[in-house]
Amino acid sequence: MAKPSLITLITDFGYSDPFAGVMKGVILNICPEVRIVDITHHIAPQNIDEAAFKLKSSYAYFPKSTIHVVVVDPGVGTDRAVLGVQTDKYTFLAPDNGILKYIFHTHPDCKVYGITNPDYFLPNVSRTFHGRDVFAPAAAHLARGVTLSEMGEMTREYVRGKIASCEVEGNRIEGQIVAFDRFGNGITNIEEEKIDKTKKIRIEIKSVKLDRLSQSYQAVSDGEPLAIIGSSGTIEIAVNRQSAKEKLNLQPGDSVTVVREQDEISHGK
Amino acid sequence: MAKPSLITLITDFGYSDPFAGVMKGVILNICPEVRIVDITHHIAPQNIDEAAFKLKSSYAYFPKSTIHVVVVDPGVGTDRAVLGVQTDKYTFLAPDNGILKYIFHTHPDCKVYGITNPDYFLPNVSRTFHGRDVFAPAAAHLARGVTLSEMGEMTREYVRGKIASCEVEGNRIEGQIVAFDRFGNGITNIEEEKIDKTKKIRIEIKSVKLDRLSQSYQAVSDGEPLAIIGSSGTIEIAVNRQSAKEKLNLQPGDSVTVVREQDEISHGK
Amino acid sequence: MAKPSLITLITDFGYSDPFAGVMKGVILNICPEVRIVDITHHIAPQNIDEAAFKLKSSYAYFPKSTIHVVVVDPGVGTDRAVLGVQTDKYTFLAPDNGILKYIFHTHPDCKVYGITNPDYFLPNVSRTFHGRDVFAPAAAHLARGVTLSEMGEMTREYVRGKIASCEVEGNRIEGQIVAFDRFGNGITNIEEEKIDKTKKIRIEIKSVKLDRLSQSYQAVSDGEPLAIIGSSGTIEIAVNRQSAKEKLNLQPGDSVTVVREQDEISHGK
Repeated sequence: MAKPSLITLITDFGYSDPFAGVMKGVILNICPEVRIVDITHHIAPQNIDEAAFKLKSSYAYFPKSTIHVVVVDPGVGTDRAVLGVQTDKYTFLAPDNGILKYIFHTHPDCKVYGITNPDYFLPNVSRTFHGRDVFAPAAAHLARGVTLSEMGEMTREYVRGKIASCEVEGNRIEGQIVAFDRFGNGITNIEEEKIDKTKKIRIEIKSVKLDRLSQSYQAVSDGEPLAIIGSSGTIEIAVNRQSAKEKLNLQPGDSVTVVREQDEISHGK
Repeated sequence: MAKPSLITLITDFGYSDPFAGVMKGVILNICPEVRIVDITHHIAPQNIDEAAFKLKSSYAYFPKSTIHVVVVDPGVGTDRAVLGVQTDKYTFLAPDNGILKYIFHTHPDCKVYGITNPDYFLPNVSRTFHGRDVFAPAAAHLARGVTLSEMGEMTREYVRGKIASCEVEGNRIEGQIVAFDRFGNGITNIEEEKIDKTKKIRIEIKSVKLDRLSQSYQAVSDGEPLAIIGSSGTIEIAVNRQSAKEKLNLQPGDSVTVVREQDEISHGK
Repeated sequence: MAKPSLITLITDFGYSDPFAGVMKGVILNICPEVRIVDITHHIAPQNIDEAAFKLKSSYAYFPKSTIHVVVVDPGVGTDRAVLGVQTDKYTFLAPDNGILKYIFHTHPDCKVYGITNPDYFLPNVSRTFHGRDVFAPAAAHLARGVTLSEMGEMTREYVRGKIASCEVEGNRIEGQIVAFDRFGNGITNIEEEKIDKTKKIRIEIKSVKLDRLSQSYQAVSDGEPLAIIGSSGTIEIAVNRQSAKEKLNLQPGDSVTVVREQDEISHGK
């Protein structure tokens, strides 16, 4: 295996505090040549689900052998474990709190290690900042070629986490809004491949009924709602040139329903 | 020509979503050694003018052969073109929506290409995220040495955009506020070289009259307004230690007038 | 000495304006191979104390020979000096306004230079943006191996700045809140080593009395206050899963007192 040479970071440390910068200092001290890419440090404080979702949307676009580090860690300082996870293509480092749930779901054969070897941590591990003291140095040592098995034991005891899947029942798919992006688009968990493209469909969100999937945001007039297949391959609820979140007053968890129209019509006959 | 080795990014993707990070993953997958610099991802959603202005203020400080990528793209998913623009020193990639207007204005002899060759895009181009699927891979291929002419045809059909120039009439220069920076300084389009430095001047903005260009923000007392030549070489309206935007209640487009005082006096004689 | 190869940046330029990106362009133009790490650009505008504190919390985690550049500079354009400071391990560049006060305090034997040689600045130095015109090029030249003594004269005339230390008096340590992090934790200036760990203690902040140092945020119930040794080695006032700043209505400068309980009890007997 070629030496990994890229580390990505997802945290809730924000951009005002020096925390993310300090993690990079620690990493570069151990592995000066590694590349580091910020995916985001703007996860809402302690929002594990948001971090899990943003990791899911991003990790697969990075080169083979990338080390993905995810630190949203309300349990820091307790005895919660630190996990190292190996899939065919990537390594993941994260606290054991369900933040890797989508990785476990799509890679049921991944290898999971409890990272415990203090040789790969900073000498003094604080009670509040394992991003700096545990995750950054462990990631840097992985980038230098140390293996997860040198850092700890394989384990089957870890938090799998729950994934809100959409449900298909007859001519209806019942899903929900799982996230919003900066533009106020509501991202659902209804995957494109669940939709029968040979039939007309209707998409329902609150009192709004949309009679098709649009091909672009501008396919409707400014300020009008639409549904579109978003960049993660699921239905997105949007408003052209505006925020659907604000305009339609959407919340995470709001129900979204896709109805196959033709069946309805034939039932009615 | 030496291989370009630096890509800059200006987008409205923000720092909360993984979009900018994903673009970097795509770029590094294709061109692992390229440097990537974020100019900003905090353009207000879909604000093409703001992005155009921030590109203008920044691009010329980068090394020769830098590839500047600008993605503020309300027309994503429609048939709006993707432009590749070559000047003597830089390459630009952007949607065809006027966002490169200052580049066209200052480099009338630049070469403009419509980028269409899918060999340089990701295999599946989404309807909503061309930053990831089109701009990032095209930029990475340019960084590897592919030329714009391999990516598409030269074109003369593209959106030039409009630039609000200041107007000189007799002893008056009429300009406007075109942008604000983080400090609340109001940046105008009145260029230093338009001002006759051998004469006394008066600067007028709303009900405020300033009788000189200051040499530093602290040349006036805390909370007092001033005019100064800003870092882009145009007049800036500021308030020492405070936000001029808030204190003087400024808006983009507000008129700013520079009057040559001596002429006025001689006319009056 | 090995060539320095890493530059860090702390500024109040924010992430919306192109200022930080432009500094990187200037740096890479002069020293294409140097690494650049953002510590933060989100210092509150012109808040010198905040920048000083965030530098203090971060600089020591970077590799030897790192060049730390700190630009919060309300005096830009005046005759305030530009300082270059050499410690055993690092070089610092900053305006002469007290922003390096913690460095001076912990490294009384550091060498301080007034940086004046225009050979290491951009050709045209603006009145408002020395981050671009002075600090970035000087840092890049340092990264290429130029020494501080080539850039200016050693000086003993510079702003030392004031540090709010905590005071120990009998069985009481009187300190204060010096900063908040993104999570709303209140960071104090009461250092762990000032606390007698063989004795019971009580921590007082406003009307809240805490009878111990917790070992993790989750050592108390959600929404409950606690005190913990934070990542900088000082007492931190926190609320599990919430913002202590909001929940306890804390301000910078609020008094925090640590009382050794056993003494009190024996006094009472």
